[in-house]
Amino acid sequence: MIKKPTLILNTQIAKSNIEKMISFCQTWQMDFRPHFKTHQSAEIGEWFKELGVKKCTVSSVGMAQYFAEAGWKDISIAIPVNLAEIQEINALAKKIKVNLLVDHEYTCQYLAENILEDVQLFVEIDTGYGRSGIHYQNTAKIDQLFSMIEASKRLYFAGFLSHSGNTYQAENGEDIARVFEQSRQRMLVLKAKYRSQFPNLILSMGDTPSPSFAKDFSEIDEFRPGNFIFYDWMQYVAGVCKIAEISVKLTCPVIGVYPERNEIVIYGGGVHLSKESMMFHRQKIFGWASRSKAEQDILETGFPVISLSQEHGVISVSKEIIKTIKPGYWVDVIPVHSCMTADLYGNYITETGLKIEKYRTHS
Amino acid sequence: MIKKPTLILNTQIAKSNIEKMISFCQTWQMDFRPHFKTHQSAEIGEWFKELGVKKCTVSSVGMAQYFAEAGWKDISIAIPVNLAEIQEINALAKKIKVNLLVDHEYTCQYLAENILEDVQLFVEIDTGYGRSGIHYQNTAKIDQLFSMIEASKRLYFAGFLSHSGNTYQAENGEDIARVFEQSRQRMLVLKAKYRSQFPNLILSMGDTPSPSFAKDFSEIDEFRPGNFIFYDWMQYVAGVCKIAEISVKLTCPVIGVYPERNEIVIYGGGVHLSKESMMFHRQKIFGWASRSKAEQDILETGFPVISLSQEHGVISVSKEIIKTIKPGYWVDVIPVHSCMTADLYGNYITETGLKIEKYRTHS
Repeated sequence: MIKKPTLILNTQIAKSNIEKMISFCQTWQMDFRPHFKTHQSAEIGEWFKELGVKKCTVSSVGMAQYFAEAGWKDISIAIPVNLAEIQEINALAKKIKVNLLVDHEYTCQYLAENILEDVQLFVEIDTGYGRSGIHYQNTAKIDQLFSMIEASKRLYFAGFLSHSGNTYQAENGEDIARVFEQSRQRMLVLKAKYRSQFPNLILSMGDTPSPSFAKDFSEIDEFRPGNFIFYDWMQYVAGVCKIAEISVKLTCPVIGVYPERNEIVIYGGGVHLSKESMMFHRQKIFGWASRSKAEQDILETGFPVISLSQEHGVISVSKEIIKTIKPGYWVDVIPVHSCMTADLYGNYITETGLKIEKYRTHS
Repeated sequence: MIKKPTLILNTQIAKSNIEKMISFCQTWQMDFRPHFKTHQSAEIGEWFKELGVKKCTVSSVGMAQYFAEAGWKDISIAIPVNLAEIQEINALAKKIKVNLLVDHEYTCQYLAENILEDVQLFVEIDTGYGRSGIHYQNTAKIDQLFSMIEASKRLYFAGFLSHSGNTYQAENGEDIARVFEQSRQRMLVLKAKYRSQFPNLILSMGDTPSPSFAKDFSEIDEFRPGNFIFYDWMQYVAGVCKIAEISVKLTCPVIGVYPERNEIVIYGGGVHLSKESMMFHRQKIFGWASRSKAEQDILETGFPVISLSQEHGVISVSKEIIKTIKPGYWVDVIPVHSCMTADLYGNYITETGLKIEKYRTHS
């Protein structure tokens, strides 16, 4: 029995989302290396395995250790190497195939001097997102890294990796398609330039929004989306998914009802949803709420979570709806960004009440 | 040895912050009932006990259970009662003195029918924050709750409780003082009106910013600040604390350096800091960074964390500083809002490397 804010996972929807993405990657003959930072669960990882997926992506060494324990033998850690974890990386690389990410000469040099096992390196390329990666035009720096990799006995160049995170900032489908195609073109230039030197180089890309809008994924060798397994309100608003494809929701008890300002308060705050926000109809929102057990069409006309403190959430509702709500009722909230919400929890509860364990960022 | 983003607690500073707040409450003859939602740690709770504090405030039933286990005998749960946890509340009220918060007639009625132990009820008053609580002028509703409480054999009226959360939104010290004094005046009107009926009624208020600016705390019986034990960048910018009074920081490894845009990337994202942001010099920031081991004066001229993804943080630095940084270096980040950051973790690490366990919101 649910008594407090609980993250509910609809396993049917999540599995269907996985199948659709596998099929999408097959269509374009891309290797599927899903990003497991979204669900962070060994049990959910098994659903991928059952459908033939053998490679995955994670965002930390700890997460790589967790999935290696769960039987994954080929894991990419898609964040520039944290040198302080070299011991853990060496231990991991002794057991499984670990693929690392580099974008800096010092990191490359440090790895060359300290890595004890053979590892594949992806060179991260910044195709426009502006977070990490070597700028796509900076081939001098790419060449510098190549010479360091070649001089090392343990390091092997796997290919170029980019994350078009700027598709998440795009305003609509057309924009998403344009941003992604621009990134792809920039990666293709690099592939063409270095193909003779490295005939097996892999172009690894991956984000959740692009498959819904971009028209061409040819010449991409590997695809690494993560969020698609859950989706969320941000993806729905961008047109990336349907509401019926969102597989997580936070079920919260109503603890306050304020007809004088058409607001209700739920037990469910920043520590339950995360403080991720987005603009929606010119309003900053933290989630999208509907009455628990409501039909899908009511979801579409749900209500915004307009503020969050540590454990309280304020929802703006209509004059009509507020008359029908009292403390003790329940509300379902679709997170703005499901990756951030899911990370807070130690497990998921399925719609039939089963518990699915997951990795914890902070042990 | 620290290898990844780690929340470091300076115990000396935290203890000094506790002592100062105790002394402040003594000056105004207010009972000190600190809010433990900020630190959530039994071990830190002991520091308060050693200084004579016997009462505390929490923001969930789970947190109340945790501190009851740790020997606290008088706990206020300062969030409107979650009816779904009535069994847990009854079990707790059997063991210790539990004070509950109500602002709705249905909650009051439900408690009257289902509570099995004597409990004290605070009636929450909204003095202007607009989150939960009965509007301070709505005495008809207050009277309605009183008649329900009186009709019950188990419920006792303890007093009026308000949280001037709007002091956190105030722009400067003058504004904080004005907002708090307005709240206090609104509470005093209620005290005057109901004092003859309830001679022992308690006025319970409490926030962290007000003690630094408000001039008059007389007639407040109980004070419940929380954040003051850690403080954070938001409180520093509002003038509430000095940098030297901030007792938590997130120590993060540098994993990327980008001189072409004067930015560095740390391993340290939304899952490590929380996505709480604030405006600072017209820029949205997620934390305030300085070189680890830097002197206090360098902190003052630190650099903003300008974006966070799940595990990456981007920091905007100067042209001079970036020349001196490479991957493997460390950065200290002062959180925008320490309550949200601390909630993510299962423990603190002290400056001397000891571990301090804490409650976890999601077990």
